[in-house]
Amino acid sequence: MNPIFPHFLHGGDYNPDQWLDRPDILEEDVRMMRKAHVNAVSIGIFSWSRLEPEEGVFDFGWLDEVIRRLTDNGIQIVLATPSGARPAWMAQKYPEVLRCGPDFQRMHYGDRHNHCPTSPIYREKVRAIDSALAKRYAKHPGVILWHIGNEFGGECRCPLCTKAFRDWLRNKYGTLDALNKRWWTDFWSHRITAWDQIEPPSPKGDQCNPAVKVDWRRFVSSQVRSFIEMERDAVKAYNADLPVTTNLMNRFWDYDYFDLAKAIDVVSWDSYPAWHGEDDLQTAAEFAMNHDLMRSLKRKPFLLIESTPSLVNWKDTNKLKRPGMHMLSSMQAIAHGSQSVMMFQWRKGRGGAEAFHGAVVSHDGRDDTRVFRDVEAVGKALQHMTPVLSEDTQAKACLLFDWENRWAIDFAEMGRRYAMHYFDTCVRYYRPLWEKGVSVDLRDMSEDTDLSGYSFVIAPMLFMQRNGIAEKLRSYVEQGGTLLVTYLSGLVNEDDLTFLGDAPHGLTDVLGLRAEELDTLYPGETNTLLLDNGKRVPLSRYCELPEDVAAQAVGTYGEDFYAGRPCLTVHAYGKGRAWYLAAEPADEEAMRTVMARVTDEIALPHALPDALPQGVIATARGATVFVQNYTKEERSVCLTDQWRDLITGEEKQGSAVLPPYGVWVLQKEA
Amino acid sequence: MNPIFPHFLHGGDYNPDQWLDRPDILEEDVRMMRKAHVNAVSIGIFSWSRLEPEEGVFDFGWLDEVIRRLTDNGIQIVLATPSGARPAWMAQKYPEVLRCGPDFQRMHYGDRHNHCPTSPIYREKVRAIDSALAKRYAKHPGVILWHIGNEFGGECRCPLCTKAFRDWLRNKYGTLDALNKRWWTDFWSHRITAWDQIEPPSPKGDQCNPAVKVDWRRFVSSQVRSFIEMERDAVKAYNADLPVTTNLMNRFWDYDYFDLAKAIDVVSWDSYPAWHGEDDLQTAAEFAMNHDLMRSLKRKPFLLIESTPSLVNWKDTNKLKRPGMHMLSSMQAIAHGSQSVMMFQWRKGRGGAEAFHGAVVSHDGRDDTRVFRDVEAVGKALQHMTPVLSEDTQAKACLLFDWENRWAIDFAEMGRRYAMHYFDTCVRYYRPLWEKGVSVDLRDMSEDTDLSGYSFVIAPMLFMQRNGIAEKLRSYVEQGGTLLVTYLSGLVNEDDLTFLGDAPHGLTDVLGLRAEELDTLYPGETNTLLLDNGKRVPLSRYCELPEDVAAQAVGTYGEDFYAGRPCLTVHAYGKGRAWYLAAEPADEEAMRTVMARVTDEIALPHALPDALPQGVIATARGATVFVQNYTKEERSVCLTDQWRDLITGEEKQGSAVLPPYGVWVLQKEA
Amino acid sequence: MNPIFPHFLHGGDYNPDQWLDRPDILEEDVRMMRKAHVNAVSIGIFSWSRLEPEEGVFDFGWLDEVIRRLTDNGIQIVLATPSGARPAWMAQKYPEVLRCGPDFQRMHYGDRHNHCPTSPIYREKVRAIDSALAKRYAKHPGVILWHIGNEFGGECRCPLCTKAFRDWLRNKYGTLDALNKRWWTDFWSHRITAWDQIEPPSPKGDQCNPAVKVDWRRFVSSQVRSFIEMERDAVKAYNADLPVTTNLMNRFWDYDYFDLAKAIDVVSWDSYPAWHGEDDLQTAAEFAMNHDLMRSLKRKPFLLIESTPSLVNWKDTNKLKRPGMHMLSSMQAIAHGSQSVMMFQWRKGRGGAEAFHGAVVSHDGRDDTRVFRDVEAVGKALQHMTPVLSEDTQAKACLLFDWENRWAIDFAEMGRRYAMHYFDTCVRYYRPLWEKGVSVDLRDMSEDTDLSGYSFVIAPMLFMQRNGIAEKLRSYVEQGGTLLVTYLSGLVNEDDLTFLGDAPHGLTDVLGLRAEELDTLYPGETNTLLLDNGKRVPLSRYCELPEDVAAQAVGTYGEDFYAGRPCLTVHAYGKGRAWYLAAEPADEEAMRTVMARVTDEIALPHALPDALPQGVIATARGATVFVQNYTKEERSVCLTDQWRDLITGEEKQGSAVLPPYGVWVLQKEA
Repeated sequence: MNPIFPHFLHGGDYNPDQWLDRPDILEEDVRMMRKAHVNAVSIGIFSWSRLEPEEGVFDFGWLDEVIRRLTDNGIQIVLATPSGARPAWMAQKYPEVLRCGPDFQRMHYGDRHNHCPTSPIYREKVRAIDSALAKRYAKHPGVILWHIGNEFGGECRCPLCTKAFRDWLRNKYGTLDALNKRWWTDFWSHRITAWDQIEPPSPKGDQCNPAVKVDWRRFVSSQVRSFIEMERDAVKAYNADLPVTTNLMNRFWDYDYFDLAKAIDVVSWDSYPAWHGEDDLQTAAEFAMNHDLMRSLKRKPFLLIESTPSLVNWKDTNKLKRPGMHMLSSMQAIAHGSQSVMMFQWRKGRGGAEAFHGAVVSHDGRDDTRVFRDVEAVGKALQHMTPVLSEDTQAKACLLFDWENRWAIDFAEMGRRYAMHYFDTCVRYYRPLWEKGVSVDLRDMSEDTDLSGYSFVIAPMLFMQRNGIAEKLRSYVEQGGTLLVTYLSGLVNEDDLTFLGDAPHGLTDVLGLRAEELDTLYPGETNTLLLDNGKRVPLSRYCELPEDVAAQAVGTYGEDFYAGRPCLTVHAYGKGRAWYLAAEPADEEAMRTVMARVTDEIALPHALPDALPQGVIATARGATVFVQNYTKEERSVCLTDQWRDLITGEEKQGSAVLPPYGVWVLQKEA
Repeated sequence: MNPIFPHFLHGGDYNPDQWLDRPDILEEDVRMMRKAHVNAVSIGIFSWSRLEPEEGVFDFGWLDEVIRRLTDNGIQIVLATPSGARPAWMAQKYPEVLRCGPDFQRMHYGDRHNHCPTSPIYREKVRAIDSALAKRYAKHPGVILWHIGNEFGGECRCPLCTKAFRDWLRNKYGTLDALNKRWWTDFWSHRITAWDQIEPPSPKGDQCNPAVKVDWRRFVSSQVRSFIEMERDAVKAYNADLPVTTNLMNRFWDYDYFDLAKAIDVVSWDSYPAWHGEDDLQTAAEFAMNHDLMRSLKRKPFLLIESTPSLVNWKDTNKLKRPGMHMLSSMQAIAHGSQSVMMFQWRKGRGGAEAFHGAVVSHDGRDDTRVFRDVEAVGKALQHMTPVLSEDTQAKACLLFDWENRWAIDFAEMGRRYAMHYFDTCVRYYRPLWEKGVSVDLRDMSEDTDLSGYSFVIAPMLFMQRNGIAEKLRSYVEQGGTLLVTYLSGLVNEDDLTFLGDAPHGLTDVLGLRAEELDTLYPGETNTLLLDNGKRVPLSRYCELPEDVAAQAVGTYGEDFYAGRPCLTVHAYGKGRAWYLAAEPADEEAMRTVMARVTDEIALPHALPDALPQGVIATARGATVFVQNYTKEERSVCLTDQWRDLITGEEKQGSAVLPPYGVWVLQKEA
Repeated sequence: MNPIFPHFLHGGDYNPDQWLDRPDILEEDVRMMRKAHVNAVSIGIFSWSRLEPEEGVFDFGWLDEVIRRLTDNGIQIVLATPSGARPAWMAQKYPEVLRCGPDFQRMHYGDRHNHCPTSPIYREKVRAIDSALAKRYAKHPGVILWHIGNEFGGECRCPLCTKAFRDWLRNKYGTLDALNKRWWTDFWSHRITAWDQIEPPSPKGDQCNPAVKVDWRRFVSSQVRSFIEMERDAVKAYNADLPVTTNLMNRFWDYDYFDLAKAIDVVSWDSYPAWHGEDDLQTAAEFAMNHDLMRSLKRKPFLLIESTPSLVNWKDTNKLKRPGMHMLSSMQAIAHGSQSVMMFQWRKGRGGAEAFHGAVVSHDGRDDTRVFRDVEAVGKALQHMTPVLSEDTQAKACLLFDWENRWAIDFAEMGRRYAMHYFDTCVRYYRPLWEKGVSVDLRDMSEDTDLSGYSFVIAPMLFMQRNGIAEKLRSYVEQGGTLLVTYLSGLVNEDDLTFLGDAPHGLTDVLGLRAEELDTLYPGETNTLLLDNGKRVPLSRYCELPEDVAAQAVGTYGEDFYAGRPCLTVHAYGKGRAWYLAAEPADEEAMRTVMARVTDEIALPHALPDALPQGVIATARGATVFVQNYTKEERSVCLTDQWRDLITGEEKQGSAVLPPYGVWVLQKEA
């Protein structure tokens, strides 16, 4: 696959508009950027009140100068549209650009990321400024990417959004009869007899119907997609070839990123792991999955567009990155498919909420700090890594991760109600594979998901089955694939209505069993899974009770009234095999044991043939292998083959020492 | 006492209106009900939008058919009025039917149980639909009971309710002078000089006066009683003989159930214990007391009208009932006076908030599940238990439990502020008696409470003394009764004004002491009660300091500056004895020790003469004794007399094994 | 310094207006006050609805009589203005007197301390009632002090306050250009282009800019100061010599008390320590600092104007004072400079929120209770202590404690965000000095703070440097002072904008280092400080990383990647020495060790020359020494000199036993 850009981008968010009265600092910035091997910066993200100081009056002079100064020095521009925050005059004159909250009350002006996505006036104002920007800069050779808005999130319950929601529903359901049936409104007497009886779900009104809440999320997600498309079209009108991104976020719940990604050319995201907490390996696993998710959204390389060179300022405890960690976490992103290491922020501002957020340049203005040197080192390393640019991740394992299922699970009134932890559960299945150097794609249940190339598909908590997924999974197994299905699967259809008949819907013959009851354990309560290899695995949270089991019982329950019943099963179907895990392993070691049992028989490619010490992870990107030490101790690694580390140029073979938080980027010697 | 119905009711909530497009399922329901020995179902609880799809247009066709199908098959009807939730069209056209919240803002349409109890329009609409239902069905021979609304709860702060509150106050107090004096409004300068200055207490306005908050609760309770009476009168107009119930709830705080029960003919309630948590015996004790409370409300048999055959879906952790538990918990209800085992719900719906709530029939539509068989077994058992129907509980012990006192305690600014735990404290006094097989009535402080028949009266935390109660307790002791009074007693009068003079008000000579100070212990802090029998009892939460003690000190404080002072005393007064417990025993064992010491000398009837192993409880209903095993282990029970178990027909005498969660329903062999 | 009054005041809040229909009780009050040695009471605090029952109609008759009765019996009057709560009629007629909340919504009538401080109508109404009171009573010989309102607190976001805030900003900044620059509004595009775009910060609007939030606090504080001044001027118009106070509170955050104190003649405060919890010594330390803070506000004696004789009723757990504690805590106030022991409340009312708050006289009306006797004993002791009246605290140590810095720290987005604990940190530095009998003043960063008289100045977390403080501290060291600066210092200027250049701003040469990075530790995480005297001190929360250290390293970090780097340093500068503590000692013992190392070489006067046992604290007020036992055990104290205890008249020399919670007030024998 072609790389997005011919080199790795290195740089970050840059806010010269905060320093227009300090030309000395703006000059100094360029000097220091060059020293730090910065080759690209994101600008203009929150510049609207400088670009349009009063309605219809534009001022691009300062931006012309900023762009000139940067590009003259070989620094390329990621140019933002300023829709993430609006000038005060706009909110004052047109209150409809602001959101209404869950209580349907209009918010006042302030903060950011809080515009109404529906407001025609806001769309018109955004289109105007975007067009003006594009007209002026879209063909500038130093501008390489559009950055649409910033960290889209949230929702609005204003009258305009309410009306748009009704229109969206009318378009989806056609008739109120259909809507009433598919929303199951006979429950609690909620039949709708006129479209304008419908309102967004809210703690001030209706919260009782999960199906409505899922539809509201779909609507919100589609409304924001349409907003981004509006911006995309505005800027593309002046240069259709200049690619467009918007910066996504991790663990993000509000919108369906698989769908949203269709509106942009390049996926980029903001990665802020909380390193050096209780379990760096868990943090690394979660962020590895996040990177893989971002790569999977468009099945293309992505950009790490924000990260911190040192610390953030918005967590409960804001801790410094230890020596080595900036390089390690930057390389992790590259390992999973990033084409960049971009940071927030180049220079700390003097005021506002993020004056103390980590930056390449701090308030002391120095270029001799620990942080500056760490950034410089990454910049330099990236210059040696151009051969990695065209390498792509080749995953034979796939994790089904689906936003609609996620919402449905989070709204489900059952089990550990409102604490179902779908995302964390997916990380738990991901981690043992990642630890073994197995590359994983993440795919959702949409039509364009093709499973045929995978050797192993995991579908944790497949609570909602979107249309066609049961058939797709069945066919996948039939053709020879290995599938793992868990408790809490196949319970509701795409309308969030329960299926009638045995569960998991459409898969009972593939799995060779049906699931009759779901037992939920109290916090602290456990059961045991007794495996056929003699291992005992602690279980927690959920224990489903299979019946009519035709499958082979690979493990059984050890306790309670269902002791002895199958808990882990495998069933041959067609050319493939379908596993079923009825209960939740209680901890990471338990999960490792179960996944080892399941994957034993599948030929999954590993990044390295060598056994690695605890805390050292190998990740392959094509022929390049990233060996990462997530511990604070040295680790001795024994390499069979002969490799070269692209960062240092050193050869690595036999026993070699990886320092604390150390990383090697290895390619085989020719 | 005559039973309500000539047999035990067995069945539950049935929602055919969710399946009108599936006649096959409606037919199947009847077949399966018969298989499960169901003889009664509650219908129409949330059917308003089906019964009156548009304003003034009624559709009873489907209900005619449902009732015909059921009654043709020998299944009787508990017919609901649909006031628990209203159609969307009504909220849209008449917003006043919706409530205003604690912030005085009108809620939007949604959810349920949230109508304004004052709104004339809502009352008119409810009266109309109730009348139409009654006109059509009140004389139908298969209809055996009216089910008014559903789980009444909550309150409204709309202008209509505010005005009604003012009227209620004017009626109660007559003049503002009287109100100002009895509300003690000179505190913080709150004198009221016009009736329309008064508003419901609210976090947006006034929260400072406990007396106002108690009055607000009385008003809210009476307003809901009047609403229920309005519905009762509407349906009784068509058949005065058809009894009326409404389903109550456990631990319910909002309304005075002793008062509310006056509006209905039959008490029924929804019982949802969280079995299989940390301490099933504590759960069983609390629900035993709940059942006794329900029986005590009208001093008549009651109905268990909702319970789950398996699990619920609305708790944080929703756990399955273990094998045996459905029978055991159903029999517990019968043991304490229920005439029914009804369940929520017959069949799980496909959508809405309760699609995953336990049901007799799950989404798989099967009648061969564990749950179905458990339900079938209870249905069959009830058929063998008709002799129990006319048996009544005969209690010689009485626990004073009073809603007005409860509210007053919860609003009291003192002690463990806002964490006084009156209800839980009552359970703590109840449990040792229940464990010993002693039947207990619960009575409140209203005028119609007659204590003369009891051997033992416990009055925990008699903080507020309603008018006449001190005299009643004095006379009770004088006539030979044994009374137990605790710390925190006799402090405020019915106006929530403190008494002047020594505490406990009106009882110091009966008790032979006065209480000078109340010490509150920090969480985790303890003291000790040294009993005259040598036992040491740990104390927590409250330690009151008695002075001028003429009573006999049965136990003294072991620690702190009041070490050596009386803590448990008894005083002969008239023909009786008055106990006083100055402090709170710290745990269940401590409570058992204290209660054993107090009840040693009182002749209280026990359900069985035999000593029972830990976790096994005997409860008498007349001559029938329910022996219940609340542990997950077998228990060996030794029975002196010769009994027969009505469920199995087996004889029981000598040593017999009660299985885990097992229950026997024993009657003596003739 | 001259005492405020010629004797110690003893008495408390008295509410005869709640008992006007009980003349017997009013008579009894006077008798009991005399018995309890009460010589002053505060009256009229919440009497507005009695004084002005309808608009413009005043009723002073009852107050005339109350004052006559008291003063006839030698009891002096602290006369309150009633602005702390208003009559219901006023709120009904003029809703603007009520506040708007953080959501900009108007509150309803109720509770207290919740007027709009801006409302012209409220100011007019207050001025009218104050003038009427002053006209009638300001020259009454028995009236000795004005008590303005009560416990001022909170804020209002109504349109009037919003406008006043804009005016205040316009006055401060002059132009929007200046405001935009100093508020750094280019961050998130928040440039203000019209004054009426500005609103108070709020969760419904803007919360992102710490500088705006600090300005809002300054405005709120100044608005309340102006309100108090308005009241002061109203009453002083009738007798300029009658002094004015208002009762302040501990840990109070809302307003800058150093500034507010300028509006009043005498500082008084309400002290409610939670005794007998986990650590009485910590409680005592915090309240010792509170007393010192109150003395420092005007650098004058102050009044303890509220305290409880037994317990309060508004904490989560309301515990009795143990025997001795009322005397001990009363004497602690005197030890730190109080001229009074006043209590809330004289007599418990029968209703309202505080009916169960501790009082000299309880609902039983007795004067033979433990509490009454404790109060009597304090009253008697005070009569023997007149020689102490003219003694002043002589402090050579000073703790910088600044409200603007406090707000800036609390709003800072960094470190342990929103949990920075500035006040508690100050207590931690205060406690080791207090334990050693060292007197401490508290001063803020305002212009009139003069440090020249101190031997030791501690400036914990000097995050915001108000104008001139760096120069003042530099000059203080230069002249020979010893200064201790900590991590998190010199980061922002008075505008809450970060300084540019090395930190701590303006002090790097004085300290001989610069601070490059701030590491924040997770809860439970620690590091170690290795002192040059061999001691190991555990560290937590914050570890700052010094660079370019010219200072002497007195201690170094023991762990993590900065192990070996300086953590505690001292630097000679001019004639003085500047210490720098880069990290937070983890517990009290750690803090003691560090402070001992720092103060070793400074000549600080101690209250007693003798070593004292654990939990016994000596505090000097001039030549009088208060020896206080904060433990529940007897403590044996060895006194070198010959003393006399003013309370008992006993001589104390050599070994003497201080009972649990005992106190001696010692003066040297002539």
